[in-house]
Amino acid sequence: MYKKSLGAIFLLIFFLSYSHNLKYEPDWSSLDKRPLPKWYDDAKIGIFIHWGVFAVPGFRSEWFWWDWKGDNPTQDVVDFMKKNYPPNFAYADFAPEFKAEFFNPQQWASVFNASGAKYVVLTSKHHEGYTLWPSEYSWNWNSNDVGPHRDLVGDLADAIRKNTSLRFGLYHSLYEWFNPLYLSDKNQSFTKQDFVNYKILPSLHQIVNKYKPEVIWSDGDWDAPYSYWNSTEFIAWLYNESPVKETVVVNDRWGYGVMCNHGDFYTCQDNYNPGKLIEHKWENCMPLDKASWGFRRNLKLGDVLTIEEVITSLVETISCGGNILINIGPTKEGSIPPIFEERLRQMGDWLSINGEAIYETKPWRVQNDTKNSDVWYTTNGKTVYAILLKYPYKSLKVELGAPKSTEATQIDILGYNQSIQWIDSPETGLIIDLQNVDTSLIKSKWAWTFKLSNVA
Amino acid sequence: MYKKSLGAIFLLIFFLSYSHNLKYEPDWSSLDKRPLPKWYDDAKIGIFIHWGVFAVPGFRSEWFWWDWKGDNPTQDVVDFMKKNYPPNFAYADFAPEFKAEFFNPQQWASVFNASGAKYVVLTSKHHEGYTLWPSEYSWNWNSNDVGPHRDLVGDLADAIRKNTSLRFGLYHSLYEWFNPLYLSDKNQSFTKQDFVNYKILPSLHQIVNKYKPEVIWSDGDWDAPYSYWNSTEFIAWLYNESPVKETVVVNDRWGYGVMCNHGDFYTCQDNYNPGKLIEHKWENCMPLDKASWGFRRNLKLGDVLTIEEVITSLVETISCGGNILINIGPTKEGSIPPIFEERLRQMGDWLSINGEAIYETKPWRVQNDTKNSDVWYTTNGKTVYAILLKYPYKSLKVELGAPKSTEATQIDILGYNQSIQWIDSPETGLIIDLQNVDTSLIKSKWAWTFKLSNVA
Amino acid sequence: MYKKSLGAIFLLIFFLSYSHNLKYEPDWSSLDKRPLPKWYDDAKIGIFIHWGVFAVPGFRSEWFWWDWKGDNPTQDVVDFMKKNYPPNFAYADFAPEFKAEFFNPQQWASVFNASGAKYVVLTSKHHEGYTLWPSEYSWNWNSNDVGPHRDLVGDLADAIRKNTSLRFGLYHSLYEWFNPLYLSDKNQSFTKQDFVNYKILPSLHQIVNKYKPEVIWSDGDWDAPYSYWNSTEFIAWLYNESPVKETVVVNDRWGYGVMCNHGDFYTCQDNYNPGKLIEHKWENCMPLDKASWGFRRNLKLGDVLTIEEVITSLVETISCGGNILINIGPTKEGSIPPIFEERLRQMGDWLSINGEAIYETKPWRVQNDTKNSDVWYTTNGKTVYAILLKYPYKSLKVELGAPKSTEATQIDILGYNQSIQWIDSPETGLIIDLQNVDTSLIKSKWAWTFKLSNVA
Amino acid sequence: MYKKSLGAIFLLIFFLSYSHNLKYEPDWSSLDKRPLPKWYDDAKIGIFIHWGVFAVPGFRSEWFWWDWKGDNPTQDVVDFMKKNYPPNFAYADFAPEFKAEFFNPQQWASVFNASGAKYVVLTSKHHEGYTLWPSEYSWNWNSNDVGPHRDLVGDLADAIRKNTSLRFGLYHSLYEWFNPLYLSDKNQSFTKQDFVNYKILPSLHQIVNKYKPEVIWSDGDWDAPYSYWNSTEFIAWLYNESPVKETVVVNDRWGYGVMCNHGDFYTCQDNYNPGKLIEHKWENCMPLDKASWGFRRNLKLGDVLTIEEVITSLVETISCGGNILINIGPTKEGSIPPIFEERLRQMGDWLSINGEAIYETKPWRVQNDTKNSDVWYTTNGKTVYAILLKYPYKSLKVELGAPKSTEATQIDILGYNQSIQWIDSPETGLIIDLQNVDTSLIKSKWAWTFKLSNVA
Repeated sequence: MYKKSLGAIFLLIFFLSYSHNLKYEPDWSSLDKRPLPKWYDDAKIGIFIHWGVFAVPGFRSEWFWWDWKGDNPTQDVVDFMKKNYPPNFAYADFAPEFKAEFFNPQQWASVFNASGAKYVVLTSKHHEGYTLWPSEYSWNWNSNDVGPHRDLVGDLADAIRKNTSLRFGLYHSLYEWFNPLYLSDKNQSFTKQDFVNYKILPSLHQIVNKYKPEVIWSDGDWDAPYSYWNSTEFIAWLYNESPVKETVVVNDRWGYGVMCNHGDFYTCQDNYNPGKLIEHKWENCMPLDKASWGFRRNLKLGDVLTIEEVITSLVETISCGGNILINIGPTKEGSIPPIFEERLRQMGDWLSINGEAIYETKPWRVQNDTKNSDVWYTTNGKTVYAILLKYPYKSLKVELGAPKSTEATQIDILGYNQSIQWIDSPETGLIIDLQNVDTSLIKSKWAWTFKLSNVA
Repeated sequence: MYKKSLGAIFLLIFFLSYSHNLKYEPDWSSLDKRPLPKWYDDAKIGIFIHWGVFAVPGFRSEWFWWDWKGDNPTQDVVDFMKKNYPPNFAYADFAPEFKAEFFNPQQWASVFNASGAKYVVLTSKHHEGYTLWPSEYSWNWNSNDVGPHRDLVGDLADAIRKNTSLRFGLYHSLYEWFNPLYLSDKNQSFTKQDFVNYKILPSLHQIVNKYKPEVIWSDGDWDAPYSYWNSTEFIAWLYNESPVKETVVVNDRWGYGVMCNHGDFYTCQDNYNPGKLIEHKWENCMPLDKASWGFRRNLKLGDVLTIEEVITSLVETISCGGNILINIGPTKEGSIPPIFEERLRQMGDWLSINGEAIYETKPWRVQNDTKNSDVWYTTNGKTVYAILLKYPYKSLKVELGAPKSTEATQIDILGYNQSIQWIDSPETGLIIDLQNVDTSLIKSKWAWTFKLSNVA
Repeated sequence: MYKKSLGAIFLLIFFLSYSHNLKYEPDWSSLDKRPLPKWYDDAKIGIFIHWGVFAVPGFRSEWFWWDWKGDNPTQDVVDFMKKNYPPNFAYADFAPEFKAEFFNPQQWASVFNASGAKYVVLTSKHHEGYTLWPSEYSWNWNSNDVGPHRDLVGDLADAIRKNTSLRFGLYHSLYEWFNPLYLSDKNQSFTKQDFVNYKILPSLHQIVNKYKPEVIWSDGDWDAPYSYWNSTEFIAWLYNESPVKETVVVNDRWGYGVMCNHGDFYTCQDNYNPGKLIEHKWENCMPLDKASWGFRRNLKLGDVLTIEEVITSLVETISCGGNILINIGPTKEGSIPPIFEERLRQMGDWLSINGEAIYETKPWRVQNDTKNSDVWYTTNGKTVYAILLKYPYKSLKVELGAPKSTEATQIDILGYNQSIQWIDSPETGLIIDLQNVDTSLIKSKWAWTFKLSNVA
Repeated sequence: MYKKSLGAIFLLIFFLSYSHNLKYEPDWSSLDKRPLPKWYDDAKIGIFIHWGVFAVPGFRSEWFWWDWKGDNPTQDVVDFMKKNYPPNFAYADFAPEFKAEFFNPQQWASVFNASGAKYVVLTSKHHEGYTLWPSEYSWNWNSNDVGPHRDLVGDLADAIRKNTSLRFGLYHSLYEWFNPLYLSDKNQSFTKQDFVNYKILPSLHQIVNKYKPEVIWSDGDWDAPYSYWNSTEFIAWLYNESPVKETVVVNDRWGYGVMCNHGDFYTCQDNYNPGKLIEHKWENCMPLDKASWGFRRNLKLGDVLTIEEVITSLVETISCGGNILINIGPTKEGSIPPIFEERLRQMGDWLSINGEAIYETKPWRVQNDTKNSDVWYTTNGKTVYAILLKYPYKSLKVELGAPKSTEATQIDILGYNQSIQWIDSPETGLIIDLQNVDTSLIKSKWAWTFKLSNVA
């Protein structure tokens, strides 16, 4: 009896303390302890979508409004407006032209699926403040009241979930360049939080409850401390109580000083691609249009990443422990420009052959080979993948300094069903001999994966 | 010494209790005790201006949005939209067309001044929620962000004050048909006040502090109790602390049950013209377009009150103790339709002759003469004014049952500089003989004022 | 046999000479011989309608395009465009906004009928070249292809004819400011006639055959000689062969030098009101808006003729042998501005009393009385009408120098059913005594007609 | 004397007959005798540009207007208009939205140059009748009056000529679906030619004189005989007198029955690719968007030809004696969609390696090899080119049945600088052995040219 009740008490104490441990506190030291949901690290590749009223002028970038009316207007935007619009035209006057009349979320889902990506992140609201869902906190400045007259977030979320197994996430800008409530808070050095209380927190709770995004990609945080944004409180709610508490991941843009220091994954900067292993999970977000995240009506081929450039970034990123989030800017009509669709489908082609070296892999003990800067490694279980970015057409040899061969070592090329010859030497390391490889039979067109079995 | 200090104490007690008496409490029993600022009762005539996005469709009335998308859409509005706009056109899409490119507040001020009116009341915000001033609580749904790109309230207030001695007031709708914050409160039976806290109260305080209106003409109150709107708190602030605390007057639309019961003046219903003396100060608001307060692009002459109808209402109203607030609807371009300008100037012509019987008068002991239903009375000091709406061209006699003549009684017609003959009889009362009056010399064209001196 | 053939020869001769007499030759000496169709002289009063794309900017006047882009642009129009439109906006871009969505030709007909006018003249095409009917010679620049998508000319013609007994006429501009075909002819000093052959003559024939206008009000003729316009050929066809050959009348604007010299009626200049008898039939065309024939969106009351001014011009014009053509400018929506409707209805009120002194009258031997410059005469059979513009409220006497009384002379006031006293003296002429006239019983409000029976 | 005058007479006769020989008569038998200007056969590859108001709706195809309002409207276009535009919206209302604000003719020229094409053909006017140059025969329905406010034809012609050595040509539609002048002629069974005289012939002469196009690509001819269009007269003028008489080429669409029978080159039908040698010079016009010649705003990648498909068509066409005219549809903004730019640049890459087998070549005695349907021949002088569409990765052998080897026969692959082994056998013909070819060193990515020297 005595022992039993004592055991029960211990159990109760254990349970209480455990449940207490489960609850995240609204401070970074607690939040930082949460383990990263596995799906995110496994997924590796996501699609980023920048869409909003900025697609209507479709000029320069999604920062059009700021470049036009912000602190230091850029001449090309100012000139563009002078040349093409009446003097008293305002940014809000663009909104009725954002019609999305060709927006077909099933077709988008189908393209994203074909790309090989495993998640999608849509700008629910960019710095312009216009929401792509019917927000009561953004009356007459949302996609239901003006423009498409449609719940763009909801329609895409549904289509993604019904037609694919991709995860759905949402980008959300904390600040809004010209929102007078925000400017009023800022004007008082963020000592009051009207904007946060009246718009941001209700909006964030609403999109989480309504659309159940598994990524919250926060942005626009840099003007103010996280205490202004109530970021830790929000994330604690997200982790503890929200309908996505088990699977949601958040990035690291929650107030100045936070970026690259807290969050489920770090973004650190746009196009972040450090070229070395980063201990904390990170993500490289990268637009296909080198000059803009939003659609530009005067986009030219030379502005668009080639598929070789896309795959290079992808390989480097995954090898170094990152995820890659590849961005497209749809048109105001709701079309994905075919050049972007092509890049996505090309990536999908490549992944259908080489995906084994990407999805669910981990960084290896080495990322980049010292003997061949065009080789990047990943690993999965006992297998090591060496991904080669440039084929050695002249030498027909690939020297690898990092892997140590064993007796059982075997080397294959993904998408090529013949065995590969290699030799090992103490000095030069492992040397793959491609002389007998018929490149014309290799399916992969842009980078080639050597699957190394039983190496050390 | 003793007496002095005692006196000082009494003075202090008196002052404290007096200042305490001055403070209005946020309940009707306290607020109702406030004396009516004299200027308002003296002014008698105001101009009401209904202006907003509804001027863009300019069809049916300023309730266009509600008639189109509200609970019981009216067929003509639905058909109008079907015939003239694309299916997914929304009300907010009208706003960019509200350009006010011809809005000339000086010219408006000049017209209002010529009308003889003594105050102006502009719709700072109608039920559509669009504000005619740059409101941070109505981002991208105000006249600065979309449409005119101008502070319409401020520009008109300035012009009125610089160019005339008219007082400036503001109409303000509490409810907004389609504001999601409001609908959310309403959905919860007004047990929460998000809309009031986030938009209405900040807006009301802002327009009072910024534009110093001397009339707050509240409206759109009927769905909810005044406790929801925090009306008594707001009015107490207005009376106690606001920059217009000495002169401001408010109407009676502050929550259901309030209308016709509380407020500096009662409006009771649109076009309120009871035809009898009302003890509490009241106002008859009346549109020149019989079918609409806002501008209609298909306005026809037959829809517009004749000047005779205007003057009849004016005379009846003033006689019964009311003020009259005559409404015009400007165009989306910012023009006052000339037919409205004409009525206002005609009224001004009439008042330039007969104003003595209107401004600063009080109701007499009798309002309407039992012997002649076309005669209405006012009084000022010892003088009684009998205003005759229809000239007796056939009989050339006017019988008045109410005034009692004295030996000193004298009768004049305003704007006619010859004396008038009359007789008095116990049975018929006072009979004015117009046989010798040369009507061609009477300046007044539409109603004639008999100035009765020394009558009882 | 003999007699028969002789008879046939006589018949032939008769027929030839008869047909010869009937046929007008395409030269002015022949055309000038045509008698004026009686209806036109009897009608006296017409309504002129200036409607077109210019109603869309609705600024300055119907010459907007010319004032903007012509040889000497006016600053206000240039500034208006700079302020309100994008730099590359062109006049043709206005056309889609000319929607006429409220155009109700039955209602227009009803207003015109109430005005007392007896004919209507609509701008089928102004100098902008845009046609108000579906013209194959003006593809994509007519009311059917762009803007109202409706045959405005046809719809109005039908409504006028179905609902009233008014005659229907058409204004037609020969030149078109910016028509490249016209400019090309002009550039070659009118030595070629491409514009006339390809557009003008086909258009004129088409509108006559299709709409059967009984007035052709030509304009825009001044740059070129009538030989360029083929005017005499066209008019000869109109008089000889057209479906309106019996009743049509044309004005005098058919090439430079023609105005005031040829045509069924002379217009001589806009607002022509010579103040004296003109031997040839003439017409005073006069806009209600003193500054513009087309609608102006910033029209103010002070720009509009008072009814007193309208009636003064009407009386002077009819007295001197002219017709008066009173102009209104409808809006782009198809509405008649109520202030214009009011003037027309006021004129109708006046004519319902005084029409006897106007319709079907002739100028008397004297037009204006030397003793009283406010008196103008007309006559019909043996009756003489002296129309008095200002009532002699002070003197109550009207001296008339021109009429000679007889024993049977009788004087009445139209709309006043009591006889009028008068005396005759060799020196002063006829003196009407108004002392016993009760002006309050005279129906006419703005000018008074003395009907003089049996005067010489 | 005798001899001299005889000589003079001979000279005169010679001159007359010579000049007579030079002159083409306006009949096909004469016109058909004209030799094809050499540049055109040498050029092989042109760029076709379909641009016009149809780019504004950007839906279904450049036949949008006809599909919407023609004899048998297609449901998708009718539904599109119902869903997105007001009921009374007309095609002409699209024109102001055709702004071409990003049109950069230098950049276009640069892309065309990079494509390897040698000429450009722009739609100066499609069936909609809207002209891309400032035409006085199409007032207010041309690119200068409405929309871009710019001479699109002239600006592109200048840029092409200043920046490249490409030839410039113009597409021109004879008929215009909805031009009332045309419909009126058609209604009278083409017994009158108002439309031809007033618009078509002046237009054709104008664009030839002004822009000096070296290709006239006629279209829209099929409703009427060439005698209606005055086609032979126009072509005779073009050949005899026009400023481009030496170099211009015309296609075969000049009236029904003419196509595939007359003209400098035959087009026979859209996408004409007969797969066999055609004796008369012909052209394969082929859009990159399989479903439309004009831009579609909902273009998807799957609608666009792959580069493999483009090169296959190109090779087949040139081999069979045709030219290929590859079509792109620019946007209303004036942008070339990047996916089209990519195809053009890919084609240019291919031609930079394989152009020797294309430009200035002639069809060989055989076009397609009976032993290998993926091989197509061209020839230039003594060299024969065998272009292989599919690489034999498995067999690494190419059997050619047609060429007969000689002792001096040598085989090279363009863009691969090592010699190729082959054997010859009476039975199998010539067999190329690719076993020692390192495909990774072949520059060409999509089709491979075997240059056969000294074969018979």
